[in-house]
Amino acid sequence: MDYKLKSVEMHKKYKGKLEVRSKVPITNKEELALAYSPGVAGPSIEISNDSAKVKSLTWRANVVAVISDGSAVLGLGNIGPEAALPVMEGKCVLLKEFAGVDAVPIVIRTQDVTEFIETVERIAPSFSGINLEDISAPRCFEIEQKLQERLDIPVFHDDQHGTAIVILAGLINAGKVLGVDIKKERMVINGAGAAAIASVKLLHDYGFGDIVMVDSNGIISKQRNDLNTFKQEVLQYTNKENIDGDLTYAVKERKIFLGLSVGGILKAEMVKAMKKDSVVIAMANPEPEILPELAKDAGARIVATGRSDYPNQINNVLGFPGIFRGLLDKQEKEITMDMKIRIAEAMASLVKYPTENKIIPNPFEKEVVRVVAAAV
Amino acid sequence: MDYKLKSVEMHKKYKGKLEVRSKVPITNKEELALAYSPGVAGPSIEISNDSAKVKSLTWRANVVAVISDGSAVLGLGNIGPEAALPVMEGKCVLLKEFAGVDAVPIVIRTQDVTEFIETVERIAPSFSGINLEDISAPRCFEIEQKLQERLDIPVFHDDQHGTAIVILAGLINAGKVLGVDIKKERMVINGAGAAAIASVKLLHDYGFGDIVMVDSNGIISKQRNDLNTFKQEVLQYTNKENIDGDLTYAVKERKIFLGLSVGGILKAEMVKAMKKDSVVIAMANPEPEILPELAKDAGARIVATGRSDYPNQINNVLGFPGIFRGLLDKQEKEITMDMKIRIAEAMASLVKYPTENKIIPNPFEKEVVRVVAAAV
Repeated sequence: MDYKLKSVEMHKKYKGKLEVRSKVPITNKEELALAYSPGVAGPSIEISNDSAKVKSLTWRANVVAVISDGSAVLGLGNIGPEAALPVMEGKCVLLKEFAGVDAVPIVIRTQDVTEFIETVERIAPSFSGINLEDISAPRCFEIEQKLQERLDIPVFHDDQHGTAIVILAGLINAGKVLGVDIKKERMVINGAGAAAIASVKLLHDYGFGDIVMVDSNGIISKQRNDLNTFKQEVLQYTNKENIDGDLTYAVKERKIFLGLSVGGILKAEMVKAMKKDSVVIAMANPEPEILPELAKDAGARIVATGRSDYPNQINNVLGFPGIFRGLLDKQEKEITMDMKIRIAEAMASLVKYPTENKIIPNPFEKEVVRVVAAAV
Repeated sequence: MDYKLKSVEMHKKYKGKLEVRSKVPITNKEELALAYSPGVAGPSIEISNDSAKVKSLTWRANVVAVISDGSAVLGLGNIGPEAALPVMEGKCVLLKEFAGVDAVPIVIRTQDVTEFIETVERIAPSFSGINLEDISAPRCFEIEQKLQERLDIPVFHDDQHGTAIVILAGLINAGKVLGVDIKKERMVINGAGAAAIASVKLLHDYGFGDIVMVDSNGIISKQRNDLNTFKQEVLQYTNKENIDGDLTYAVKERKIFLGLSVGGILKAEMVKAMKKDSVVIAMANPEPEILPELAKDAGARIVATGRSDYPNQINNVLGFPGIFRGLLDKQEKEITMDMKIRIAEAMASLVKYPTENKIIPNPFEKEVVRVVAAAV
């Protein structure tokens, strides 16, 4: 089926996907006087005396913003704020439908990092959480870091951390299937974008001790003089033996391949050169780094992708709805590395009997949001 | 009844008044694939090829922002963005309940005019209209004007124009009740804030030829050397005879008093000195410039206030829901002076048989929104 075409039709029919609704009735003068003037002066006075009450007397009790500048939308690139809106609206729909979180899509017309940060800072009093979305690397790192420093509400860049958390959950269960302590296995990460860098940090923090990261110029090593500051930082977590080489060299005798790169880049020969019973997580979309059937034929024991038409779909929908549900319920101001690890472990635990074809839960399983939120 | 206290209880119980809802079902993988990845790439690509399609393929078909900096909230003054949120949320509730318009409350943490303007400009791609609210004068004039110049969506400061439109509608019907051409009658406006300045412009444009405006230092005249640029501009529309004096002097032999000022300022003696069968519109809230019973006793024939517990409530709820309904339906980019006059005339026409106690429709009358929207 052509999902894109069918999706255009659906969007046209419903005029988008989101609406606002009133939680209170307005059918007579008295109800009007409570929801609006003169009664509404009551909650306004309460909040002006104690601004924390904004979280109990307004919809800020339950509302987050899903914010993008449209600089890196899906695999479509820098298509700008208007064209990003359907994706943001979709994310808001999922936050509500999966986790009961009210979410508002905000697309911003500036791609200057400082302007973006100050804009989000200024509108932040309207919301109790910020989900950053589809912002290009390396800009997204500075944006997320500075906003989290300056705001007293959680700021979460799902493309980075949501992806990293679900990958870690999958790897935890892959370890159970293989009967190994997965963090002791040697890993190669192909790609050095936002999700890859967030993943390597989380995996390192979880305890993975031997990771090499490969970008389009080869293994990231101290010898390289073409590394931006973010890739330089990656050296803290990777390549202990400080080796050089290309992807073909990097995968040799490694147990785990994590691709956050481009379709078709992992060849069957490379998988054959990996350690026995390897784990291949091929996240490129829509075409993974290697098709699951090819990887399996070449000796991979467990294969996961971002696609819904293969087993083991690494899908962010498993994470962000429950994560924001938990952040709002517990009024957390920040999402820490410890939280992310707890969330990944909780997510993994939802699969009671992991198998090669089931290392990750299905987002429609009822327990997912509750368990993820509880782990926050 | 203590509306404020009861309103606080209601806001606490419901955690504010607004929520978002999905218009599409998300119960299985296929629906997920249409609303979100991979299908959502379809509408995003369409919009990246033709940005106007954002108005048919996203909720921007029907969504406006209600925006404030919290600098002049109700009669409470400069209480800041968080404390303004219940009012903005209330306005959004009314837009939805009365006119089916989806509206999002945005409160902004800056009171610098330039920063406010640039912030709204940057988030504007998220919305198809901007309702400015509770922004102090004279800052609100520059903000509204510059935003309307820079944006290709309508920008409407309801405190100014909404109020002015409903006042004009009331005056049109007052003329019918009195059997006079109301615009030929002499008027005094007490107050020179945002709503007063917007009203004098609209009333002048409608044809009122003899208006004097009074501020706390007396009649606004060419002799005054304490006038800001906005009050200087008012001289174009008022005080043709260039008189000086206080309010007591200004009201003498005038038919119409319009107060947008402070409670209790219009004394019975002043009303007695007005022309026979005078019209008193006393908008100060909660205490009007004069209580209706006092004004009537002193000879006023028609009295209107902003209060719901007296006849003739001049209530902005009569205007903004239908106005935004019309702006969205007709994809208007701006609200012109002609539109405002047409809207006021249409609003007045909703009262088939105007009487002294019924110069303005009730906001719960079903026809209001349709007729106002049609007049846009």
